Amino acid sequence: MKALSNYKNKPLSEVYHLQLSKPNQGDNRADVERVVAALQEKIQVPVTMPLELMYELPSALRRNNWQLFVTINYNWFPANRPEHHLQAQVVSFSAPQSQPVPYGVAVDLGSTTVSGQLWDLNSHQLVAEAACLNEQVSIGEDILSRIFYADTPEKQKHLQQLAAASVNRVITDLVQACKIKATDITAAVISGNTSMTHFLLGLPPQNICRSPYTPVLNNPCFQTAEKLGLSMHPSAAVYLLPNVGSYVGGDVLAGILASGMHRKQEISLLVDIGTNGEMILGNKEWLLAAAGAAGPALEGGVVTCGMRAKPGAVYSVQIDRNSRQVSYRTIDNLPAKGICGSGIIEAVSEALMSGIINRRGQFREGRTSLVIVPKEKSATKMPIQLTANDIAKLLRTKAAANAILATLLDQAGYDLTDLNHFYVAGAFGNYLNVEAAITIGLYPDVPRQRIEILGNSSLKGAGLLLNDISKALELAEILKKIAYVEMNDSADFMKHFTAGLFFPHTDLNLFPTVRAKLLSTTRDK
Amino acid sequence: MKALSNYKNKPLSEVYHLQLSKPNQGDNRADVERVVAALQEKIQVPVTMPLELMYELPSALRRNNWQLFVTINYNWFPANRPEHHLQAQVVSFSAPQSQPVPYGVAVDLGSTTVSGQLWDLNSHQLVAEAACLNEQVSIGEDILSRIFYADTPEKQKHLQQLAAASVNRVITDLVQACKIKATDITAAVISGNTSMTHFLLGLPPQNICRSPYTPVLNNPCFQTAEKLGLSMHPSAAVYLLPNVGSYVGGDVLAGILASGMHRKQEISLLVDIGTNGEMILGNKEWLLAAAGAAGPALEGGVVTCGMRAKPGAVYSVQIDRNSRQVSYRTIDNLPAKGICGSGIIEAVSEALMSGIINRRGQFREGRTSLVIVPKEKSATKMPIQLTANDIAKLLRTKAAANAILATLLDQAGYDLTDLNHFYVAGAFGNYLNVEAAITIGLYPDVPRQRIEILGNSSLKGAGLLLNDISKALELAEILKKIAYVEMNDSADFMKHFTAGLFFPHTDLNLFPTVRAKLLSTTRDK
Repeated sequence: MKALSNYKNKPLSEVYHLQLSKPNQGDNRADVERVVAALQEKIQVPVTMPLELMYELPSALRRNNWQLFVTINYNWFPANRPEHHLQAQVVSFSAPQSQPVPYGVAVDLGSTTVSGQLWDLNSHQLVAEAACLNEQVSIGEDILSRIFYADTPEKQKHLQQLAAASVNRVITDLVQACKIKATDITAAVISGNTSMTHFLLGLPPQNICRSPYTPVLNNPCFQTAEKLGLSMHPSAAVYLLPNVGSYVGGDVLAGILASGMHRKQEISLLVDIGTNGEMILGNKEWLLAAAGAAGPALEGGVVTCGMRAKPGAVYSVQIDRNSRQVSYRTIDNLPAKGICGSGIIEAVSEALMSGIINRRGQFREGRTSLVIVPKEKSATKMPIQLTANDIAKLLRTKAAANAILATLLDQAGYDLTDLNHFYVAGAFGNYLNVEAAITIGLYPDVPRQRIEILGNSSLKGAGLLLNDISKALELAEILKKIAYVEMNDSADFMKHFTAGLFFPHTDLNLFPTVRAKLLSTTRDK
Repeated sequence: MKALSNYKNKPLSEVYHLQLSKPNQGDNRADVERVVAALQEKIQVPVTMPLELMYELPSALRRNNWQLFVTINYNWFPANRPEHHLQAQVVSFSAPQSQPVPYGVAVDLGSTTVSGQLWDLNSHQLVAEAACLNEQVSIGEDILSRIFYADTPEKQKHLQQLAAASVNRVITDLVQACKIKATDITAAVISGNTSMTHFLLGLPPQNICRSPYTPVLNNPCFQTAEKLGLSMHPSAAVYLLPNVGSYVGGDVLAGILASGMHRKQEISLLVDIGTNGEMILGNKEWLLAAAGAAGPALEGGVVTCGMRAKPGAVYSVQIDRNSRQVSYRTIDNLPAKGICGSGIIEAVSEALMSGIINRRGQFREGRTSLVIVPKEKSATKMPIQLTANDIAKLLRTKAAANAILATLLDQAGYDLTDLNHFYVAGAFGNYLNVEAAITIGLYPDVPRQRIEILGNSSLKGAGLLLNDISKALELAEILKKIAYVEMNDSADFMKHFTAGLFFPHTDLNLFPTVRAKLLSTTRDK
């Protein structure tokens, strides 16, 4: 039997053709053992077959002259020590006339958006992508309100069903797109933050947000699709990424996996500013994780005209340096309904560079707001604008991000110039103007060739593991190395936070390209 | 993690008291991982917890100040290579106020009778025994008729339900006897022949009795009680003994385990003459198994007045050597309804020793039958008797047993004098007069101190494994060593069979004590 490290590029589900020897007096092994032995010879790991499949096996073997296609899944346990625990399970078998394709789905179970990919695991081809709103939004926009809601087993079950229903909507779109049946899907990898994973498992989430922030479960590993109520083959292996506490969930671990930062000698920084901002600093020897509520200022509900990045949201803003004329773009070119995170960042960056606000975030020349869409053009019949208060909130969010990064660098004994790779993660990154984020100081001012936009790194990481089970070993290494740094405990955090209350920062030496731009702008005037 | 060989005398289910450290900022591992780590430290094997148990865990831990009793089951796979595959699963947890007892049942799933034992697995005490008729008898008395019946998935399911219902009746009796709940039972070991095991699993049994006699499954290992419809804790681990083909089932393997013949240097013979007669010859290096329809002549349906060993059956017969007066005993002292196997054997032995029949089994002095119970005393109002034809059938059954043993000895290169241990297995043995069985030549004439009456060795073997999981290693060794000898293929079988058509045998040198008795009887006349 081989160890997991020998299974590079093996997908989580495979189809094998078996041509078995017919039983005779010298070899009358049972049907199940005959199939299992033939599979074990091919894949070199212990194979099990669920009882349900055994009912049909004898007639299927004899009807098809001892030839079958067999679909298997791999599994292992526990998540942090998978090397010598690889096993396989038979999921289904079918007649030798037509070879089935092993399909798998990768899912990023976001608190707002659930995104999925359908993979042909035989050819390692991505065949479809889909996304939908997480149906749990009906219970509450933010995770905290869902946790407060889920205070009885019935409500936990309700949230479980909403999470499963959201994943199932994505699956429905995926299978319709390429005309397969949901039951053709025999494997899945799902990444989500710790709360979302708990919701999907139906686990009580209360202690996630109560000191000392203890999840029910760190390593869900495998569950069957049937148990979770997911529309796939009932015995499909569903792998849920582990978490390392309440604030570093499977989505972050999948992101690290997708970035490859855990295999590099050089220092990398991974930043995922979504609802809850996470930062990972490290290399192949160590990984430091931190989290903070970086997101709220960049989403609906906190900023006066804020909204999620959906059709009608202003996602890009330009301000003419001379005329201060504002132009903007909306998602799907619809009449503007509000402004999403990337729009806010670009608007403030432009306001700074065109001198509408000063480096403290205060309006100059007696202004009280920056109108981006006048009420005549807005879909809401109200001006879409940023107030002084909105900008102050963004400044604090940015200062928190600065402080987290500075604290992590302090702990590790490095500084900004040591960051060889800067990975921008999160669906947020899709519309984001990275230059603007650097201009306001939200992202560090590193040489641009060091920046890599990962997009939805949680989904990418899930897809990697789905297509290559040996990634489970990398994940185990990540679990072993990662340490969570609690910001509230850090004496330096407040000092760094205060220093961050300037655009881009009190210390302009940390933002050399922004300083240069600011100087040239001033010079131009 | 330790290998199975380190777990001598560990029962299949155990209860542990856990006093966990309370989570704090320095140790905020998840609740499940905290419990699992504490258990793993105690038992040194990987531990899993089913999702269902996780729902209640957080509140149970906090309500009980981080103390719990946890009931676990061990499991391993596959049956023939268990050494490094030992795992444990949490079955339930309970409050620290009262320590639960881990209960387990051992079951012999016989085609006629289902027998069970309830064990306190903590103290290794047998706390109750019970038995009931296999409800499948309603489908057919013999296994072959049930196999013919089970020709559709619905009928296979019906037989599965009848088998489970029979086991459940035994369990109901067991739990009522000692006032526990069925859900207190968290582990079970079930032994049965290959067909019965297939019936309990709901598997199609047809190929068991069709050349080349291929079961669906050799190694069932573990199923949950819920999956099999058994009245225990739904997650109870139910271990079904493996088979090594259609004719050497789990009941035989359990019998070998109970006898200990597989650990002795000396040669042993294990004989189980039930519905299907089985013989195992061997020692710690090799094991030869053979089977033949030895039983029918000894049961209802074949012998004119035959019946199963149940109340009202004549189980013992004495004939006065001079007066030839017949006396008899019935089970439960009820009016005689028929004669069971042990009664037939003793009646023929007595008829032989009192000169009523000759060594060919023929009646002397113009008799045509041996009346054991005259019609006036019989519950059926018919005489209970053995006819010449009945005795001829018994003679053939006996000759088959002689031939099987002789063929096995030939193959192994030993003779009768090499048999250091002779194990008499089967519920049949409960009433059996071993001397009578030797007198007619059914059992070999070995020195009496070498004979050991095992009783229900299938049930005993199941009980052993239930109380000592390291027996799984012995079972794996047995599986590795045992070879089935097909009698139909043996040229010598017919020769030995013909030589056996005398009571006790053509060659009286094989039966020295019987020869002496016959000589003294003749001398007395």
